[in-house]
Amino acid sequence: MIRVAVVGAAGYIGGELLRLLVSHPDVELAAATSRSLQGRQIDGVHPNLRSRTTLRFSAEDELDHYDAIFLATPHRETMARMTEFLGLARTVIDLSGDFRLASTAAYEDYYGTPHTAPDLIESFVTGLPELHREALRTADRISVPGCMASAGILALTPLAHAGLIRGEITVDARTGSSGSGAKAGSENLHAERSGALRVFAPTRHRHEAEISQATGLPVRMTATGVEAVRGVQLVSRAHLAPDVDERDIRSAYRAAYGDEPFVRVVAHRRGLHRFPDAKILSGSNFCDVGFALEAGSPQVTVISALDNLVKGGAGNAVQCLNVRYGLSERAGLEFTGLHPN
Amino acid sequence: MIRVAVVGAAGYIGGELLRLLVSHPDVELAAATSRSLQGRQIDGVHPNLRSRTTLRFSAEDELDHYDAIFLATPHRETMARMTEFLGLARTVIDLSGDFRLASTAAYEDYYGTPHTAPDLIESFVTGLPELHREALRTADRISVPGCMASAGILALTPLAHAGLIRGEITVDARTGSSGSGAKAGSENLHAERSGALRVFAPTRHRHEAEISQATGLPVRMTATGVEAVRGVQLVSRAHLAPDVDERDIRSAYRAAYGDEPFVRVVAHRRGLHRFPDAKILSGSNFCDVGFALEAGSPQVTVISALDNLVKGGAGNAVQCLNVRYGLSERAGLEFTGLHPN
Amino acid sequence: MIRVAVVGAAGYIGGELLRLLVSHPDVELAAATSRSLQGRQIDGVHPNLRSRTTLRFSAEDELDHYDAIFLATPHRETMARMTEFLGLARTVIDLSGDFRLASTAAYEDYYGTPHTAPDLIESFVTGLPELHREALRTADRISVPGCMASAGILALTPLAHAGLIRGEITVDARTGSSGSGAKAGSENLHAERSGALRVFAPTRHRHEAEISQATGLPVRMTATGVEAVRGVQLVSRAHLAPDVDERDIRSAYRAAYGDEPFVRVVAHRRGLHRFPDAKILSGSNFCDVGFALEAGSPQVTVISALDNLVKGGAGNAVQCLNVRYGLSERAGLEFTGLHPN
Amino acid sequence: MIRVAVVGAAGYIGGELLRLLVSHPDVELAAATSRSLQGRQIDGVHPNLRSRTTLRFSAEDELDHYDAIFLATPHRETMARMTEFLGLARTVIDLSGDFRLASTAAYEDYYGTPHTAPDLIESFVTGLPELHREALRTADRISVPGCMASAGILALTPLAHAGLIRGEITVDARTGSSGSGAKAGSENLHAERSGALRVFAPTRHRHEAEISQATGLPVRMTATGVEAVRGVQLVSRAHLAPDVDERDIRSAYRAAYGDEPFVRVVAHRRGLHRFPDAKILSGSNFCDVGFALEAGSPQVTVISALDNLVKGGAGNAVQCLNVRYGLSERAGLEFTGLHPN
Repeated sequence: MIRVAVVGAAGYIGGELLRLLVSHPDVELAAATSRSLQGRQIDGVHPNLRSRTTLRFSAEDELDHYDAIFLATPHRETMARMTEFLGLARTVIDLSGDFRLASTAAYEDYYGTPHTAPDLIESFVTGLPELHREALRTADRISVPGCMASAGILALTPLAHAGLIRGEITVDARTGSSGSGAKAGSENLHAERSGALRVFAPTRHRHEAEISQATGLPVRMTATGVEAVRGVQLVSRAHLAPDVDERDIRSAYRAAYGDEPFVRVVAHRRGLHRFPDAKILSGSNFCDVGFALEAGSPQVTVISALDNLVKGGAGNAVQCLNVRYGLSERAGLEFTGLHPN
Repeated sequence: MIRVAVVGAAGYIGGELLRLLVSHPDVELAAATSRSLQGRQIDGVHPNLRSRTTLRFSAEDELDHYDAIFLATPHRETMARMTEFLGLARTVIDLSGDFRLASTAAYEDYYGTPHTAPDLIESFVTGLPELHREALRTADRISVPGCMASAGILALTPLAHAGLIRGEITVDARTGSSGSGAKAGSENLHAERSGALRVFAPTRHRHEAEISQATGLPVRMTATGVEAVRGVQLVSRAHLAPDVDERDIRSAYRAAYGDEPFVRVVAHRRGLHRFPDAKILSGSNFCDVGFALEAGSPQVTVISALDNLVKGGAGNAVQCLNVRYGLSERAGLEFTGLHPN
Repeated sequence: MIRVAVVGAAGYIGGELLRLLVSHPDVELAAATSRSLQGRQIDGVHPNLRSRTTLRFSAEDELDHYDAIFLATPHRETMARMTEFLGLARTVIDLSGDFRLASTAAYEDYYGTPHTAPDLIESFVTGLPELHREALRTADRISVPGCMASAGILALTPLAHAGLIRGEITVDARTGSSGSGAKAGSENLHAERSGALRVFAPTRHRHEAEISQATGLPVRMTATGVEAVRGVQLVSRAHLAPDVDERDIRSAYRAAYGDEPFVRVVAHRRGLHRFPDAKILSGSNFCDVGFALEAGSPQVTVISALDNLVKGGAGNAVQCLNVRYGLSERAGLEFTGLHPN
Repeated sequence: MIRVAVVGAAGYIGGELLRLLVSHPDVELAAATSRSLQGRQIDGVHPNLRSRTTLRFSAEDELDHYDAIFLATPHRETMARMTEFLGLARTVIDLSGDFRLASTAAYEDYYGTPHTAPDLIESFVTGLPELHREALRTADRISVPGCMASAGILALTPLAHAGLIRGEITVDARTGSSGSGAKAGSENLHAERSGALRVFAPTRHRHEAEISQATGLPVRMTATGVEAVRGVQLVSRAHLAPDVDERDIRSAYRAAYGDEPFVRVVAHRRGLHRFPDAKILSGSNFCDVGFALEAGSPQVTVISALDNLVKGGAGNAVQCLNVRYGLSERAGLEFTGLHPN
């Protein structure tokens, strides 16, 4: 059994890590920390875990040493404390934004603050098995991408790396409310957020920088909060390289994802479920990717969807753990998702 | 023109008062106060009023004297400051809970605090024109019932007053999230509240006391938060007096509401819209009331619905103003509601 | 491996059976029938099963013989064909309404049609392991209760059987839209059903008869469609027998459910998650049960919730299969549910 | 009083026309036709109109002659019967798609069928007062744009006509379920549509052609069904002409909409309500338009929102009637919209 701890376990990403880890066949969840809730039972704030665990939140200074720790801590704080965290476990899997961008200039630009641990950045491997599986097999510093970033990277890198698209990519991202976390604020009031189509980041969303970094192409992304608790969907547009046709695109996706356990290509000619929709992905670790072409148009429209808390966060992190420790990559991540839901 | 002010205008009931008053043909909205937002434009927090008003929030000490003021202030504070408020206008229309219950014992029992202005209680007329129209024509102290209370009182008093029901009434109340107000708290986080069926008051909800007071019968009410921003629906059950049949019930409702502009009896044998549903009432001042009997059963099931911010609050208050000032009772309250919605 | 088939697999209950059975460690899903979709891949209408199965719908005349078949067929048709179904498998697990009521008079009363296979009724065991586990260990004809019935029976039988309540029970039931099945009709149009509080059965819902049969007490139930796809919640009220107090009720539930894998008692004094809420149960096989008392009141309010397609249908059926075939009762039913969701 | 009739009044656009017309101060609603519901009261399917009208649906052959008729009839049928309709009223206001496109080639391309009344196309004036007010003052054949088209045309024509943008425009459109009409089909089943992010038109949506026609620029639009009953929001992107800055864009919008009663420019630096959101527009005739620029980027992102049944359909049609008959342009269209909602 791999002995793990979750730091910052009271929030939504933290809770989702707990959900996956308590049911993981090869993992012992040894500790879950929360400053505000230490000593309290974790099923008090994560009621779906009732009867599944009797674990209580612990204080951070109660942590000892683990095979792996998961960091569901805020950006800024995470980089400030990373040296401390590295001392707590062989493997550190960071879900904050602090070690996602290789460029400190990009970090400062998108996060509005200088990076305070620049020497550590290079040691982190991007926690996306579909692109970095080999490196992850031996990685002990893993930085999991942002939720919308993962949906964009998985949608676009097969085309970008195969040279099928070029120039600027535009991304229209839609996200559920759990992406904002469990902090109460007027922006997350049910009466304000319910049914909203809130363009909260018309430009310059942080995840844009990750997609650009992974594809090597400029990206312009708009992010809208839609009526959903979980779920991210991206509609991306890119210009095709000359003479690229549908078969080339299908081939590129097949080459990239034909053997992947958690990426499915969904692009049908008709039906209710032609393209990826986050509605059926809640709780699952799938990222669905699809595309559409238009006769005579030089553009491709790519649609991708995932559960922001699972493949866009905690599930992806667990998948990285599975890769790192040589487990079945599906271990603890078998849930199919629900339909209807 | 009747010159009015709204005290506590930044919240949801306050905002709904502003919405109705800026469009009211016979009213001049002269002031809207907010401690936290004074000097700010009211359409900043009430964006539906963009282009309809340039009014700014004022401080309370900027108030002078008005024909009428509406109090959308918290309970406790309202009774503590009532003498001050009474000096500001000829007519005070209070939407807090402080002057709804005639009995100070009941108040203390349900609100958990002693009443601090007991001498004033008797001077308030209940702001429900369907039951108190004559008194309201000359009333200058008006206390508007609670949202669920209005739905319950309008549903049950015609039967209770006609002697058609007796014994204990049970009420199952469902309410949208706007009833909790605009304060951010974890209970109102979208991710927590969305899709919830939260039994937040299994017993002893405050509005229960108002229904009991109006019907003269004991009431046991359970309140559940359901997925909606606006809207209240009550399913009430009572035992019929001997030999009461459907005609008696229809007659009682017809006698009570045949001429009422804002209460409709909705009880069909079939169809999608057989019974009252708050879904089609958003923004309207209607309270719909319906009922069902069962062959051989001594019970009647009564269903009622309204928009908690309109007929359950601001709209009802404006209707009282109309009655008090001899205006058309429908003035400013003509919106029909939307279908579908 | 237990070899099973699902008859009527294109609908929502059928799809949920497929979801559970394709992931069940001890089951081989051998066939799934649909008249309208025979030959089509099952993930076309159940898109959550993409990459999890390549099974296609088969015609009913392609069925051979199985260890167990699950019937997700309409009432009336099910009883008319039961002899045929009994020939297809050792164990028949019926999810229709046809064999739930022991009394043919009650059946005719609630279903509006005479029972056409009265001789078979007695041979069916009620598919609710919490009440009928011993009989289910050897049962080859199993009738799974209705979704709201299961929530009511699990909530109320511990109190009824212990003699803690008496007289008439009133039940206020709320249900999501998936309970109406996958047939398109105006009552299920999104624009009509979204946000609705639709009292579709003010009296005489069929599931009422099942709760009455199980508790031995008269039941009056009202059913309301609320905004949810999955989920059932019941608020039930009953009169306490003399001298019954909170400890008695807790004891009764503890005795009934202390060792049950899928029933949790949820009754806290405070917090967002004081009482059962279907919101966190989607996809899980839990039925949560809670209660509230009021000082001085002779009533108990019981709240129960489940996912209508899982513990209210397909999950319950799989749990029965597990009991019947001596498997771990949790096999295939481990999903915890999501929070937030 | 202007005497009007609505043809095809049982659907959602028809119902919305009835809602606006029964409350219109200068209109007499003389007839509302429905083939399937003739003789039935209109509040049976439009329950929001209870107590507001006793009108019944009539057969089409009961129509006589009106000042104006509104056509809420399907495309194809509308052009086939247009000669007949033109004989029924002085003014025909068509809400179908048949007379929106000036080019019969574009019509055939987007609608998949040849135009059968090409000689009539030129006689229709586009029913968008913001662009065609002068022509509408005397127009007796008016073709109201599509819901997403109106949101796109109002967002983009001020920039296109001022030469501030050039090249291809991309549009990401999101729409509620009422846009699909009141016909029951599996695509509109609540269980399927609730919470969906369904990319139903990745390319070639019909409304794209209207935006292109109005702006004179190529348009590529993707349409996604989102969780909402009412509401359309578009996020459009275009390349700026050289040296265009924020002031130019604000000036163009001010010039276009400074005096418009129903278009508001909404583009704030911060706050929950920075950009247009359909959530607060339900029932209102507003189209809100906003935009965002990014330092160093040659693109502008334009956000627009409206209620698809009001400014995207019935409200726009009534506004055209007001212009044509010299009424106050706001007559019958005063509802502000709700917040929260």
